[in-house]
Amino acid sequence: MYKWNWIIEWGTPASAHMHAVKRFIYHGKSEFQEIQIVEYEELGKALVLDGKTQSALVDEFVYHEALVQPALLLHGNPEKVLVLGGGEGATIREVLRFKSVKKVVMVDIDPVVIDVAKKYLPEWHQGSFNDPRLKLIIGDGYKYVLENKERFDVIIADLADPIEAGPAYKLYVKEFYEAVKKKLLPGGVFVTQATSPTQMPYTHAVIYNTIKSVFKHASYYHVYVKSFDGVWGFVLASDEKDPESLSGMDIDKLIEEKIKGNNRFYDKIAHAHMFSVPKYLREEIESIKDVATLDNPIFTPA
Amino acid sequence: MYKWNWIIEWGTPASAHMHAVKRFIYHGKSEFQEIQIVEYEELGKALVLDGKTQSALVDEFVYHEALVQPALLLHGNPEKVLVLGGGEGATIREVLRFKSVKKVVMVDIDPVVIDVAKKYLPEWHQGSFNDPRLKLIIGDGYKYVLENKERFDVIIADLADPIEAGPAYKLYVKEFYEAVKKKLLPGGVFVTQATSPTQMPYTHAVIYNTIKSVFKHASYYHVYVKSFDGVWGFVLASDEKDPESLSGMDIDKLIEEKIKGNNRFYDKIAHAHMFSVPKYLREEIESIKDVATLDNPIFTPA
Amino acid sequence: MYKWNWIIEWGTPASAHMHAVKRFIYHGKSEFQEIQIVEYEELGKALVLDGKTQSALVDEFVYHEALVQPALLLHGNPEKVLVLGGGEGATIREVLRFKSVKKVVMVDIDPVVIDVAKKYLPEWHQGSFNDPRLKLIIGDGYKYVLENKERFDVIIADLADPIEAGPAYKLYVKEFYEAVKKKLLPGGVFVTQATSPTQMPYTHAVIYNTIKSVFKHASYYHVYVKSFDGVWGFVLASDEKDPESLSGMDIDKLIEEKIKGNNRFYDKIAHAHMFSVPKYLREEIESIKDVATLDNPIFTPA
Amino acid sequence: MYKWNWIIEWGTPASAHMHAVKRFIYHGKSEFQEIQIVEYEELGKALVLDGKTQSALVDEFVYHEALVQPALLLHGNPEKVLVLGGGEGATIREVLRFKSVKKVVMVDIDPVVIDVAKKYLPEWHQGSFNDPRLKLIIGDGYKYVLENKERFDVIIADLADPIEAGPAYKLYVKEFYEAVKKKLLPGGVFVTQATSPTQMPYTHAVIYNTIKSVFKHASYYHVYVKSFDGVWGFVLASDEKDPESLSGMDIDKLIEEKIKGNNRFYDKIAHAHMFSVPKYLREEIESIKDVATLDNPIFTPA
Repeated sequence: MYKWNWIIEWGTPASAHMHAVKRFIYHGKSEFQEIQIVEYEELGKALVLDGKTQSALVDEFVYHEALVQPALLLHGNPEKVLVLGGGEGATIREVLRFKSVKKVVMVDIDPVVIDVAKKYLPEWHQGSFNDPRLKLIIGDGYKYVLENKERFDVIIADLADPIEAGPAYKLYVKEFYEAVKKKLLPGGVFVTQATSPTQMPYTHAVIYNTIKSVFKHASYYHVYVKSFDGVWGFVLASDEKDPESLSGMDIDKLIEEKIKGNNRFYDKIAHAHMFSVPKYLREEIESIKDVATLDNPIFTPA
Repeated sequence: MYKWNWIIEWGTPASAHMHAVKRFIYHGKSEFQEIQIVEYEELGKALVLDGKTQSALVDEFVYHEALVQPALLLHGNPEKVLVLGGGEGATIREVLRFKSVKKVVMVDIDPVVIDVAKKYLPEWHQGSFNDPRLKLIIGDGYKYVLENKERFDVIIADLADPIEAGPAYKLYVKEFYEAVKKKLLPGGVFVTQATSPTQMPYTHAVIYNTIKSVFKHASYYHVYVKSFDGVWGFVLASDEKDPESLSGMDIDKLIEEKIKGNNRFYDKIAHAHMFSVPKYLREEIESIKDVATLDNPIFTPA
Repeated sequence: MYKWNWIIEWGTPASAHMHAVKRFIYHGKSEFQEIQIVEYEELGKALVLDGKTQSALVDEFVYHEALVQPALLLHGNPEKVLVLGGGEGATIREVLRFKSVKKVVMVDIDPVVIDVAKKYLPEWHQGSFNDPRLKLIIGDGYKYVLENKERFDVIIADLADPIEAGPAYKLYVKEFYEAVKKKLLPGGVFVTQATSPTQMPYTHAVIYNTIKSVFKHASYYHVYVKSFDGVWGFVLASDEKDPESLSGMDIDKLIEEKIKGNNRFYDKIAHAHMFSVPKYLREEIESIKDVATLDNPIFTPA
Repeated sequence: MYKWNWIIEWGTPASAHMHAVKRFIYHGKSEFQEIQIVEYEELGKALVLDGKTQSALVDEFVYHEALVQPALLLHGNPEKVLVLGGGEGATIREVLRFKSVKKVVMVDIDPVVIDVAKKYLPEWHQGSFNDPRLKLIIGDGYKYVLENKERFDVIIADLADPIEAGPAYKLYVKEFYEAVKKKLLPGGVFVTQATSPTQMPYTHAVIYNTIKSVFKHASYYHVYVKSFDGVWGFVLASDEKDPESLSGMDIDKLIEEKIKGNNRFYDKIAHAHMFSVPKYLREEIESIKDVATLDNPIFTPA
C-alpha cells in the first residue's frame, strides 16, 4: 500500500525530500509562520515551520547537543546564557543541563510556537519552560540584543534561516554580531546555527566570514542530521576562547563533570567528527570572502 | 517554471529523494540491471543503476577517495590490488594513482556498464581502463575470489548493495569474507562499501560484525555524500594492520609521498572526520551482534 | 514559493495525482478507515478516506447529482429510498430534494465518518441529517439488505470501491444484487457508483455485467470529476424501467417539477453527455463478460 | 518495487500528475522546445514537449479523431485542408483518411519535431508524411496564414497552448482568426484545440469568445483524454455551416461513406457526448466575455 500524506521539502526547484506523514497533530498559522506538528512515518513527531522540518523526535538531540554543548564547554563556567529563538524548548533544555547555569533568558518572536511546543513537544522541552532559572521573553531577538543591557556568558542563536521574506536576516549581519559581542561578559562565547554547508555553502561561508570579521576566534563545524536529509552547520566564536582549544581538552570528562544526565550524541569522538571538516568543504568555505551587512545581507531561498 | 523530469529514489516506502534531470544521455538494460546516464540539474552527470544514483560528477571523488585511500595507506606499500565491481572506473583510477601499485585486477559482472562508463564517463575513469597495469575481467566477483588463486595486497569491494533480488548478497557473508582473507598476501588489507549507516543501520552493522568475525582488526567509518542525500559507510579490515593506527600517522605527508595528483576530499582532517563516528551511531552499530552467512544472509530493500 | 503539504493519490504504482493541501482540518482513524478533512489549495474542503479523495467542495455536486437524479427520475415517483454508504450526507441531500420522497433510510458502516461529516461538512449535507424523513442506521449495508424486510422505490449504493482488504467487495457481487432486487418495490430502480471506466475498465465492466445478469435493464454512464482527476462511472438498473427511456424524456421539465432547488450539473444536456459513452469505451466494457460472485468477486487495487 | 523515472506535469503549483517512464527513447532540444520521446509504463510511447505530454499511444486517436472529424464532416466535401502544427503526423493522418481530400498543407514551425516524429512515431503518422497529397512547410503558421494567398475548405489549428514565453499566443487572437476566415473557401470550416475547459476554463472561454466574435457560428466541445488526466476542449466554427447541425445528421453513415478505415473513438454517440457540455461548464464558459487581441492576448501558464 502506498503512502498518501507527504511533506515535500524543496531544497531548490530541482531537488526535494519527501517524507510520509502518519498523522497530522496540529496545523495552524501565527503572525510569523505556518506551524505544523506532524508524526512522520519514519522520523516520529516533528515540528514543521513553513514546510521545513525544524526537528524530529528521532534525532533532535543531534542538533541540540551540537548547537549548545561545545559553546558552553568552551566557556568553561557559564552562569548566564541567552537563547535567541529555540521555540521547541530543546535548546534551553540542553543549556539547563549545565550545572553551572544560573539564569537563561530565551527570546522568541512567536508565542504560538511556544504554546504549541509546550503542549505538543514535551519530549523536547522536558519541562524546561517551568525551570525557575528560565526567563522567557516573547519578542524580537534583534531588538532585544540591541536595546537590552544585560550581559551573558554564552549567547546562542537558534533562529530561522535568513530568508528574504522573513525578519531573521537581520540576525545574520555584521552589525548584529557586533551587538552580540557587546552583550557578552568577559570570556563570553557565541554560537549560531549556520544553515547547511553542503546545500547552501555560500550562505554558510558568509555567516562564518561575517562572524570572523567581528570575533577574534571563529570556527565552523557541522554534523549530519537524518531528519534534515543532510548536514547542518554551526559557527562558534569568541574573543577570548579559541574553539580549536576544545580539541585538546578531555571532553568526555568535562561532560561528566559539568552536565546533568546523559548525552546521546556529543562526546570527544563526535566533537572530532564535527570539527574535522573535509578538504573540499574547507576549501569552498574559505574561498568565499563576502561579509553580510544590513545594507548587503545574505539570504537563503525560502 | 517547474521541472518535469525526475528521478525519485525511494529509501523506503515512506521517504524519497527527488532530483530533477536536465538531460537523459543513455538508457539501456543489461542482463543484470537497468542502466542510465543522466545529467542532473544540480549534481551533474551521473550513473544510475536500477534507479539508484551510483555516483555523480559533483562529488564522486568523495566516495572514491574515501573507499580507496585509507585502505591503500593502511597497507603502506600496495603493489597488487583487486577491485570487485567499480564499473565507473573511478575506483581503479584512485588505485592507479598510488605510485607503488604495479597491478590492478578489476572484476565486474556487467560488460554493458563497463562499455557505457568507457563511453560516457571519462571524468570518472580518466583513461584508467587503458592503463597497462590494469587487467579487466568481466565475470562474477564471487566466483573469482573463490576459484582464482592469485593473491593481493589490497582487496576493494565496490559492489551493489545486497538486495534480495540480486546476486550481490553472496559478497556480504562470512564465507565470502573468509575467502577474501585467503586471497590477501601477508599484511593484506580489505575494504568494502557498507551501505548507509543512518538509512540502513542494521545492514551496516551486520556487514561490520561479519567482517570483524573474520579479521583481527576491523573499523567502520562513513562520510556524507551529497549526491546520495545521506552518509555512506565503509568497513576497513586486516589481520596484521589496525585501521586505528592511521589516526597516529601523518596522513598528509603519506598522501604527498605515495599518491600522484591532488586529492579533493581526503586528508588528515577528513580522515579524522570519517573515523570519528558519533556516539549514537557507534552505540547502534555495536548493539547489533548478528553475522551474515550464506544460510542466513543480510539483505537491503531494493 | 513551493507547496509542501501534499496528498498523493496513486492510481497504480506507475501513476499518481498530487494535490497540495492548504490546511489539515481533521485527521483520525475509525475501525474501518483513516479519515481526513482537508482544505485543498485548488479543490477546497474535501473528505479523504484512506488517502482517496471522496468528494471536494469544488465539484461534489457533479458526482452526487449524477449518482442520484437519473435513478429517481427514471423511477418517476420515488417515495421510499435506501442509501447504502454516502457518509458525507450529500447523497441523501440530493434524494431529499425530490418532492415525492417520504422516507430515506441511510445505512453507513462508519459512525466516525458520519460524525465528522456532520461537524465539518455542512456544505455537503446542508442539514439533511436532521430531516425528519431520514432514518439513519449505523451498520453493515450488506447485512441490512439481506436481513431487513423493508422495500424501497430506489436503492442507491454510494460505497467504497471493492478493495481486497475491505468489506465492500461483498456489495459488488451477483448474490448481493439479487438481494437488492428483492428489496425493490414494483417499478423499483437501483443505481451504484461503479469505479472509473478509464482507470479501472475491467472492474467497471464486471460491475455492469454482474448487474445486467440480475436486472432486465442496465446502463452504464460516466462523467468527468475534476477532483478525481478522471471520469467516474455508474450503473443504473431496473426490471421494469429502461434507463434508455430517459433520453426521450423532457428531463429539464422533470427536474423543474420534481426537484426542489437548482441543479448545478445535471440537466438534459448533461444527461446526454453522461449516457453517450465513446466508442472505444463501449467496446472495451462490452468485450468483458465476467460476472462477480461471492466465490469469485471483483477487486480494485487499494 | 518502486518506479524511479517520472515525468511530473504541473497543472499549477498546487497540482500535478505523475507518470512513470519505462524507457527514454529520445531527448533533444530544438530552437523552440525541449523534445522527448518516452515510453510510459501505462500510456505507451508518447511525445513530450517542454514537459507536457502531447499525445500517447494509448489514446492519441481520441484527441486526433475529435479534432479532425467533426470539422471535415461539417464541411461535407473537403478537398483542400490546412493543418497548422500537428507535428506528430496524426492530424494529417486523420485528414488524409477522408476520401474527398485532394490536398493537405501542413505548416509546422519545428523541423526537429517533424524529424523525430518521422523516425520514432510511425504509429501516429502511419506514412502520412509520404502521402502525395501532402505539402509540408516548415515555417511559422502565423506568417503563413497572413501572407500566403491559398484558400482552404478546412483549417485545423493543432498548436501548442498560448504560453507567455512562446510564439503560439498570436494564433489565439482575434486578428489571427480574422485572417484564418479570409483563407477559407466558401463554406469553409475552422477548428482549433482550445486547452482544457476544466483546468483552464478562462482560457478556453476566451478562445471560444474570440472565435465567436469572428465567425457566425461557433461551438465548443470537449472529451476526456486519459493521457492528459483530464478533459480537452476544441472550438469548431464557420460562417456558413452551423456545428449544431451535426447533431441532426446520421454521423455513423457519413463516417462509413466519407472516411477510409475504422474509427476507434468517434461516432454518433461520441459526438453527442462531446457536444453535450454539462451545465456548470456551459455556465462558466458563457459567463466569460473577454476577447483576445494582439494587444490583449490570452496566456496559459507554462
